[in-house]
Amino acid sequence: MADTRFRGVFPPTVTPLTEDRELDVASFERSLNRMIDAGVHGLFVLGSTSEVVFSTDQRRREILETVVRVVDGRVPVLAGVIDMQTERMIEHAKVAQSIGVDGIVATAPFYAIAGTAEIEANFRYIHDAVDLPLFAYDIPVCVHKKLPGDLLLKLGMEGVLTGVKDSSGDDVGFRFLLEMNHKEGNPLNILTGHEVVVDGAYLGGADGAVPGLANVYPDPYVQQWDAAQAGDWGKVASIQNYLADLMRITVVPKGVVGFGAGVGAFKTAMKELGIISTNQMPRPVARLEGDNIKAIRQVLAESNLLS
Amino acid sequence: MADTRFRGVFPPTVTPLTEDRELDVASFERSLNRMIDAGVHGLFVLGSTSEVVFSTDQRRREILETVVRVVDGRVPVLAGVIDMQTERMIEHAKVAQSIGVDGIVATAPFYAIAGTAEIEANFRYIHDAVDLPLFAYDIPVCVHKKLPGDLLLKLGMEGVLTGVKDSSGDDVGFRFLLEMNHKEGNPLNILTGHEVVVDGAYLGGADGAVPGLANVYPDPYVQQWDAAQAGDWGKVASIQNYLADLMRITVVPKGVVGFGAGVGAFKTAMKELGIISTNQMPRPVARLEGDNIKAIRQVLAESNLLS
Amino acid sequence: MADTRFRGVFPPTVTPLTEDRELDVASFERSLNRMIDAGVHGLFVLGSTSEVVFSTDQRRREILETVVRVVDGRVPVLAGVIDMQTERMIEHAKVAQSIGVDGIVATAPFYAIAGTAEIEANFRYIHDAVDLPLFAYDIPVCVHKKLPGDLLLKLGMEGVLTGVKDSSGDDVGFRFLLEMNHKEGNPLNILTGHEVVVDGAYLGGADGAVPGLANVYPDPYVQQWDAAQAGDWGKVASIQNYLADLMRITVVPKGVVGFGAGVGAFKTAMKELGIISTNQMPRPVARLEGDNIKAIRQVLAESNLLS
Amino acid sequence: MADTRFRGVFPPTVTPLTEDRELDVASFERSLNRMIDAGVHGLFVLGSTSEVVFSTDQRRREILETVVRVVDGRVPVLAGVIDMQTERMIEHAKVAQSIGVDGIVATAPFYAIAGTAEIEANFRYIHDAVDLPLFAYDIPVCVHKKLPGDLLLKLGMEGVLTGVKDSSGDDVGFRFLLEMNHKEGNPLNILTGHEVVVDGAYLGGADGAVPGLANVYPDPYVQQWDAAQAGDWGKVASIQNYLADLMRITVVPKGVVGFGAGVGAFKTAMKELGIISTNQMPRPVARLEGDNIKAIRQVLAESNLLS
Repeated sequence: MADTRFRGVFPPTVTPLTEDRELDVASFERSLNRMIDAGVHGLFVLGSTSEVVFSTDQRRREILETVVRVVDGRVPVLAGVIDMQTERMIEHAKVAQSIGVDGIVATAPFYAIAGTAEIEANFRYIHDAVDLPLFAYDIPVCVHKKLPGDLLLKLGMEGVLTGVKDSSGDDVGFRFLLEMNHKEGNPLNILTGHEVVVDGAYLGGADGAVPGLANVYPDPYVQQWDAAQAGDWGKVASIQNYLADLMRITVVPKGVVGFGAGVGAFKTAMKELGIISTNQMPRPVARLEGDNIKAIRQVLAESNLLS
Repeated sequence: MADTRFRGVFPPTVTPLTEDRELDVASFERSLNRMIDAGVHGLFVLGSTSEVVFSTDQRRREILETVVRVVDGRVPVLAGVIDMQTERMIEHAKVAQSIGVDGIVATAPFYAIAGTAEIEANFRYIHDAVDLPLFAYDIPVCVHKKLPGDLLLKLGMEGVLTGVKDSSGDDVGFRFLLEMNHKEGNPLNILTGHEVVVDGAYLGGADGAVPGLANVYPDPYVQQWDAAQAGDWGKVASIQNYLADLMRITVVPKGVVGFGAGVGAFKTAMKELGIISTNQMPRPVARLEGDNIKAIRQVLAESNLLS
Repeated sequence: MADTRFRGVFPPTVTPLTEDRELDVASFERSLNRMIDAGVHGLFVLGSTSEVVFSTDQRRREILETVVRVVDGRVPVLAGVIDMQTERMIEHAKVAQSIGVDGIVATAPFYAIAGTAEIEANFRYIHDAVDLPLFAYDIPVCVHKKLPGDLLLKLGMEGVLTGVKDSSGDDVGFRFLLEMNHKEGNPLNILTGHEVVVDGAYLGGADGAVPGLANVYPDPYVQQWDAAQAGDWGKVASIQNYLADLMRITVVPKGVVGFGAGVGAFKTAMKELGIISTNQMPRPVARLEGDNIKAIRQVLAESNLLS
Repeated sequence: MADTRFRGVFPPTVTPLTEDRELDVASFERSLNRMIDAGVHGLFVLGSTSEVVFSTDQRRREILETVVRVVDGRVPVLAGVIDMQTERMIEHAKVAQSIGVDGIVATAPFYAIAGTAEIEANFRYIHDAVDLPLFAYDIPVCVHKKLPGDLLLKLGMEGVLTGVKDSSGDDVGFRFLLEMNHKEGNPLNILTGHEVVVDGAYLGGADGAVPGLANVYPDPYVQQWDAAQAGDWGKVASIQNYLADLMRITVVPKGVVGFGAGVGAFKTAMKELGIISTNQMPRPVARLEGDNIKAIRQVLAESNLLS
């Protein structure tokens, strides 16, 4: 049975920086508390949105310790152990365990080309190395490998995996996975990472969502979850429409791609909304500026978050 | 406003062949009438599922004429004009118009590498060449180009495009398109081509579905559409679960990929269900055999379509 | 043993158009004769460069007939039979045979997703359908499938394939193929389609080249072939350096991609050099204009082809 | 002018492991000395072949210290600083500098999606952080970004980059880069990383090669370099033919892909030749076994390295 601790809205936390790229602890506390106060059911730290791959080991530790301290047991914390291959992922997993998180999240190995055998072995090695629930993070846009659904299910049934965080962009595969998992008694907690299709994911039976956009505005995601639990699908969808509009903050920036546009937009919106102090980005990424900030403010205004 | 003729379930028709790869007209009539009798709202002929790219011009004409004759105005017929570049697409469009279809469907140009300018010009040239509603077919897995959502919307607002048949596999982009289209007063009819996520598409506001699986079993898709219209989302989703299970006929074949597995499975299931006479495939594709047929029969049995 | 008719420089012919996109026969004759007079060893017609995929069946026939008439047996003519799947390729092959070409060239099937089995069957079906030497055209950038080297060699040893035209962009795979072919007694004629690395291909043992750039300036490619035959590798490489510089006509255009930039640049250079009358392009592609023409003239001047 | 220290054959070192996956120092010394004794002109440590991404920071340091100690100034040592983003690459670069290498090698940033701006900034930040020559490592198969040739040349002319290690698999882009670099007075040292097309690279003017296969057999690569310097291109090519045959050790393993097949084959061949003690691989990769070892022995025998 799916672990009930890991159901609902688990925002992947944005990491606020100071102008000189130190961790902005005050902004971070503000943002974390704002999400928890809004009723999110957990947090996912050191995922792609948390700029984990831009962080030194020291910075990763600093982020994790801050989150665990601020959260203080109010909600469960999942920690990413993102790195290129097994040994480093295990190092990160052990640090996360020592700091006191509730679960860890790992991708397929990357950089060196791997097959399914290596992907499976990687999850098994990590599972064996620590005493924490392990989520598989399916994010082919970053690791350039789609996790096979039947492998995920097998590892779930064996207890190697507790759940899946799906950012695969493969809604068909996602639906097959939901259905296979359901037939087997829900060994896996299945969370969607796609902010704008959470309604369909819930309708299909997903156990929760990991929406980066919740850093900007957490309340609708919580309301959407509650509506889904109550079977009020019209409300689930209309909230989704609102959130799809708001998500356009990541689409309007010009001349910027990928992380700089996506997380850059989250940070810019959060700064404009007074949640964090700067929209500074980690090297080598430039922060959004000028017309891109204006375009994001425009979307925030259209979503009634700015006047 | 979205054209009301093109709403609901529009199965992409499978093309039955005889053993020696002639068009099996009797089987075709049986399959078409079965879908119309089940209540489908239209048909999409000469799409990927119809083996359009395997067909000579003569065969395309034969297929279209058969469909128009058999349908006899009972439901609207959309005809694919799939080919590599503009001039050939226009030739196909003129033939389709002369035979009497209700609309045509074109992809981005392919083989020769194109940019957005060529994609836009292609749709404009086709629109200018015939007097029929034009749908854009977004199928990057075949043409290796994703149609940009803002281009689709612009062409919809200008009246160049009447609708979009989305097989993009990009649920996030699909949801953005639905939302943008809605904000502009629904200039586009937006149909999803992904059989197993129709529930989420309807919840997000899609105007219909183009499910290949409806050749195997059309009734649930019609019931699902009716449930969506009635706002009975629990029923929409539970029908989808059933259909996701049934869609596993395309997943269980071993040693086969792509068209041979997908349409091969549709044909095999249709043959086993007595709808068509053979599961013969067009050259150079081999038909499914042996254990693959057994595996498909097993799925059909689990779905209560075979005993 | 490799067929000696198909060795040396086989330019893929550019198709000159009039302003209103008719075949410009006078320009075409001029260009063909210029290449033959320069000493090219054959011609490849209706390849990607010939805008084959933009052409109706009628236009394909017109192009082929013109070439066969103008060439009049002076050099061998290879004809592309490019289309999506087997039946259409066979139709084209039969037309080409009836017009009187010396060999045909086919790609892997495309649009519908295929595996190695379908690729192999496709070549076998075409080989069986006509009585002409068959070349495999390896061009994954257009058909999105790399032809496996061991399949090519097997089909060569069985006499299904006479040769390979390699535009794979995979120099490592190309070198393995050359070496495997050599070990088996050269059943395949192996031609490179990459204009700027012909020197390395010859050094590795390739039987010839299919350089689109030879439409702009054929003489250096003929001289390079002669130098390679004489073992004068310094000359082979220095000619290549000159040709790599000249090939920058395809790199300097701004705001254009793919076919519009590549063949667009060939046509523009040919027009500026007085070989053809317009740089008109087939629909939906726009011709190069303005600064892009200036940039191409600049490259031509630096290569001492314009003053 | 290209830095003369970085010309010639620079094998990327294989990292021998003990059965329990510790660094096998004795085997490593044997292998390093064997290559230096054969006359290689330098070594590239902590590249993809060195299993850098499988290594903890501690293991990276251990490898580097061993190499610097064993080489003892006999040849220059380039050290990879491979990691996902800038801050970690800089950490590795500082360690490498402290241990005493002669230059460092960095890829584009990866995992988080980047544009050209981030790629450029990444190289500039690394260059500013240490006082060592910096090579760009172009390896899109691992980082999923091709380094743009004009960016490389610009950074070379500004002194940010000393050279390029090209494993791009894009021979056309490589030749354009060689030619542009030559026209600008060779600001960049350009090395090819593709073992089987070194002859063409040298003919085109490359400054050297980084052949993983030289771990298995270094002597032919040294002889090939000498022949290229002497202009004996027939010999350059015939040595290449021999090496292409030998490189089939990486092609013959069945049921294994990517790193497990490639470096797995190098290690297996080195073990069979008595150079290293085991063919153990880093987690999560399995070592080659059984028939795969036999197939590699067969290739070694055909290349007269085993009887």
